[in-house]
Amino acid sequence: MFSKNKSKFIKSLQIKKFRTEYKKFLVEGAKSILELINSDYFINELFVTEKFYQENRAAISQNKLTTEIISESDLSSISSFSNNNAAIAVATMKDNEVISATQNEFALILDDIKDPGNLGTIIRIADWYGISKIICSETTVDFYNPKVISASMGSFTRVSTYYCDLEKFLPTVYVPVYGADLDGKNVHDFSFSPGGYLLMGNESEGLSSQVKKHITEKIHIPRYGYAESLNVAVATAIICDNIKRKI
Amino acid sequence: MFSKNKSKFIKSLQIKKFRTEYKKFLVEGAKSILELINSDYFINELFVTEKFYQENRAAISQNKLTTEIISESDLSSISSFSNNNAAIAVATMKDNEVISATQNEFALILDDIKDPGNLGTIIRIADWYGISKIICSETTVDFYNPKVISASMGSFTRVSTYYCDLEKFLPTVYVPVYGADLDGKNVHDFSFSPGGYLLMGNESEGLSSQVKKHITEKIHIPRYGYAESLNVAVATAIICDNIKRKI
Repeated sequence: MFSKNKSKFIKSLQIKKFRTEYKKFLVEGAKSILELINSDYFINELFVTEKFYQENRAAISQNKLTTEIISESDLSSISSFSNNNAAIAVATMKDNEVISATQNEFALILDDIKDPGNLGTIIRIADWYGISKIICSETTVDFYNPKVISASMGSFTRVSTYYCDLEKFLPTVYVPVYGADLDGKNVHDFSFSPGGYLLMGNESEGLSSQVKKHITEKIHIPRYGYAESLNVAVATAIICDNIKRKI
Repeated sequence: MFSKNKSKFIKSLQIKKFRTEYKKFLVEGAKSILELINSDYFINELFVTEKFYQENRAAISQNKLTTEIISESDLSSISSFSNNNAAIAVATMKDNEVISATQNEFALILDDIKDPGNLGTIIRIADWYGISKIICSETTVDFYNPKVISASMGSFTRVSTYYCDLEKFLPTVYVPVYGADLDGKNVHDFSFSPGGYLLMGNESEGLSSQVKKHITEKIHIPRYGYAESLNVAVATAIICDNIKRKI
């Protein structure tokens, strides 16, 4: 029988207040756990089904992970997924350390992204396009939220974040800051620098005026139809594709 | 007091079985409702808060809509949103009529898209890129699912769908069928025809082998980092951006 105290502790990590207090977070589901095992995150404890354990015995024992085999129903009961038939890990959060883009590197700056699914998807997009740094406003949803971790499909292990006051961070920046604006230049015929920041804003409000004034290059994604806007993760992906293309 | 029978009827439309039986569906929230009013959909009944009614009186009376003013709490209780402070409409579904891409037109074909948020986002992307036709496998989530309608942000009014057996539909097609494949050509230096179909597959399984064999041009989105894949809506957007660009 799975311990009640342990179950309570794990469930508490679904809430930001407790994650901050314990400096721990949850990783759920087979793919994310396997990426976690291969990453530089410290895993405190792993809860796995017998099946997952048998299938991944080598990776688990090689990394000397503290592991408890529990039933699928116990696992689902402590999971933020409705159905988890693989594993949950308790891992240690990284410190919120300052990061910045070097001269030939692209990084993202996110202003007030609220939806965990969007942040997770943006992390996955960043990882696809070789972007490993994301600077987030303090109002952006927590990187360690289980829904963010899950939507990132393992990419959270390869992307660093730094949460800060963007109004203080942006004036320290010395590479171009690209931001979407209706009056901006068409990304299809725009020459991006070899490095810089791409600034993306809130789902319904876009960029705040305080942040917007730090954009050094306004850009826009051309529209061919009638939708008023694009989802923020979708827009991020399209701009990244235009930044990285060589043709 | 809002009638119990009406409340029961409206809530039943959250379920596909009842939508199919009554040929009606729900549209929720201010933006979607305003797009619905300006569309060619027939609105059976509109339930609005006093505030929404006052703000949109002209549009409502101009279109002679059967309207009932109800409290915000009654509205939220019948809504699939946790919080709806604007309006719900009961509208009539369109017939499932055959559509196809003309020679100079792009259309989407979706094979087994399961997540309503993904389908809604794809509809919004299609509308942004001037694509007004989407052919869906019978296993794809229902277009009239409230979460699909909501995620489309009003674009459902400008995009037609046709649900069919793709294995029967695809052999009748005479324009190019583009589909993502690891061995495909790089979309960054690929010349798309002026018209054709873009075939996108299931969130975790991709395209089924029966459907895959109908691809006439294999393409891929180049990767610059390490993520294993992209979300299906994100990938659709990037390919559409590459199809439509002239530069």
